[in-house]
Amino acid sequence: MSVAASPSSPLQVRQWLNSQAPVTLESLHGRVTVLQVFQMLCPACVSHGLPQAVRIHQLFPNERVAVIGLHSVFEHHDAMGPHALRVFLEEYRIPFPVGIDQADPGSRVPLTMQAYGLRGTPSVVVFDQYGRVRLSHFGHIDDLQLGAVIGQLLAETPSHAPIGAAASAAGRRSSSPCADTGCGLDAPP
Amino acid sequence: MSVAASPSSPLQVRQWLNSQAPVTLESLHGRVTVLQVFQMLCPACVSHGLPQAVRIHQLFPNERVAVIGLHSVFEHHDAMGPHALRVFLEEYRIPFPVGIDQADPGSRVPLTMQAYGLRGTPSVVVFDQYGRVRLSHFGHIDDLQLGAVIGQLLAETPSHAPIGAAASAAGRRSSSPCADTGCGLDAPP
Amino acid sequence: MSVAASPSSPLQVRQWLNSQAPVTLESLHGRVTVLQVFQMLCPACVSHGLPQAVRIHQLFPNERVAVIGLHSVFEHHDAMGPHALRVFLEEYRIPFPVGIDQADPGSRVPLTMQAYGLRGTPSVVVFDQYGRVRLSHFGHIDDLQLGAVIGQLLAETPSHAPIGAAASAAGRRSSSPCADTGCGLDAPP
Amino acid sequence: MSVAASPSSPLQVRQWLNSQAPVTLESLHGRVTVLQVFQMLCPACVSHGLPQAVRIHQLFPNERVAVIGLHSVFEHHDAMGPHALRVFLEEYRIPFPVGIDQADPGSRVPLTMQAYGLRGTPSVVVFDQYGRVRLSHFGHIDDLQLGAVIGQLLAETPSHAPIGAAASAAGRRSSSPCADTGCGLDAPP
Repeated sequence: MSVAASPSSPLQVRQWLNSQAPVTLESLHGRVTVLQVFQMLCPACVSHGLPQAVRIHQLFPNERVAVIGLHSVFEHHDAMGPHALRVFLEEYRIPFPVGIDQADPGSRVPLTMQAYGLRGTPSVVVFDQYGRVRLSHFGHIDDLQLGAVIGQLLAETPSHAPIGAAASAAGRRSSSPCADTGCGLDAPP
Repeated sequence: MSVAASPSSPLQVRQWLNSQAPVTLESLHGRVTVLQVFQMLCPACVSHGLPQAVRIHQLFPNERVAVIGLHSVFEHHDAMGPHALRVFLEEYRIPFPVGIDQADPGSRVPLTMQAYGLRGTPSVVVFDQYGRVRLSHFGHIDDLQLGAVIGQLLAETPSHAPIGAAASAAGRRSSSPCADTGCGLDAPP
Repeated sequence: MSVAASPSSPLQVRQWLNSQAPVTLESLHGRVTVLQVFQMLCPACVSHGLPQAVRIHQLFPNERVAVIGLHSVFEHHDAMGPHALRVFLEEYRIPFPVGIDQADPGSRVPLTMQAYGLRGTPSVVVFDQYGRVRLSHFGHIDDLQLGAVIGQLLAETPSHAPIGAAASAAGRRSSSPCADTGCGLDAPP
Repeated sequence: MSVAASPSSPLQVRQWLNSQAPVTLESLHGRVTVLQVFQMLCPACVSHGLPQAVRIHQLFPNERVAVIGLHSVFEHHDAMGPHALRVFLEEYRIPFPVGIDQADPGSRVPLTMQAYGLRGTPSVVVFDQYGRVRLSHFGHIDDLQLGAVIGQLLAETPSHAPIGAAASAAGRRSSSPCADTGCGLDAPP
């Protein structure tokens, strides 16, 4: 895990799913971008990486934080082709654009994965508003830590909306003294 | 939930546990401070609020992020006195300082809880490096969101250490192609 | 953990909470009985033992499986007295009768805990329809294993109702092909 | 969900994986058998059904409880062929035999799924020692309930080994008063 800024290679993608047009890093400038790199038959991607990316997509305003996926297959290529991936994305209801990493005829590792020096899946890469890599992490990363990196980069990005706005409904009053979400002052002691 | 800065009232604490000396907001200036407000017999405090505070204490460098607790009893005061709290903190291995919110003779709600306008427990209050309240939230708050607020405030706070350093061991190489933490490139395909 | 039958000592209880009348093993004859032994400030009791007991109470028909609690305090007695316990049971919404294990003037370990040879909390003791101890287990026990013991003892107990009846609503049809609970045949492929 | 005994149709399987020889219900007589019916791209199968089957495989002695899987594809057949399934079983480390349900040229629903009247995936079917269906359940089923059915059927099945033996190591003594697994008597109060 490193947070130093470095210039980014372009995403080398054969095909985009869940998107009408190809996605480029340039088109995401001005937003913090979270790139979730996965394989559809990688258990930790399914149980950890992708659900975390979906939560980020749901919790942060999309005009400030973009989430995209990258299917970077480096093993069992014939079981994880474009059609199988399309079914997977539908069944798992993945809501954000997913690119298929471009194969390298001379290597089992696809081109974007090589260019970013990724060590496996799941990996998460976070770009700042200028498209520079600020975090690249392989394996499990805690929500608190990943949230802190996103918050740090949001603080650098000009905006008119406060970043906590998406959570405004979370603390609404409970009718009983101790509900699942907490013990409210309103009820009789 | 609000993130606007506002001047902070002092913590009105009868007694500090897990701390040799009283804790003041002034003594925490220069650090982001997370205040976890709880009652020891509040189920959501035990299952959500306190474990989240302990994770923050473990994941972020303490010289940059301070975590403190506040025991703000507003119901069943006689079952949650100082001795019971001391036993609770020991059994649950709470590692950070915990203050006992000062009782108000004229109200069941203690003084700090009143001054901060808190609506129940668990509540989390986050202060910036100048001791100003930047987040006050009652009930469940997602790790990603709370992490983002911490990251935003860390970005405003000067430091020589990168905020991701604590996660440096998380992505170490796995010996099998698909371990619990992910699928590594190193193993044969 | 042992499953051999053995004659049972009576429960030596100072006071019953959540119950209009004292509970005796004799009054439970004809039912499988699950006794959850806990301390209100024991973390694993709060996170594992008691929630498991509540699930058993909810999932099995009460006329076939009885669930009762026993508060067996062997440390920090002054922080876990009857009043504090009453508050705890209310806040945690424990729905079944809970007895307070009778103190022994000559020992910190209360009398029922001694008589049953229990080694700590949480412990679960399961009685067959004749009130004989068939399982006594200290610490974490998997739901599948505890369920199997209950099922084994139910098989020995005459009844007119099938044991799976409580689950009859669980498999109701889903309106989408792949919902959280599964992929249904009904929807279009 | 039903627990009444009924005669069982044979498993109509095109190919067995994770098994040197075909598996028949007859070959499993004398054991309680748990059949996990799934599709490899069904989210609830991956998050709930298969992990539950793996836990059963690990917790109960295999000479008393057999666990087998059945891949019953009724949608997206071309994305879940035998090769993809083989990769899936390897990546997810499924340890028990898995049969591929025989396709029906006249229906999208395969033959065994039809014969057993299953409504979708995941489904679990439990057979008694005589190979009769005693439980057939579609969707989520609680570990306690499924464990109770297994325990009930084990009680009908002659054996020399007590069913709790697999849990014998679970309650070992803890060195601290309140560890993650519970509060032990041994430590000083």
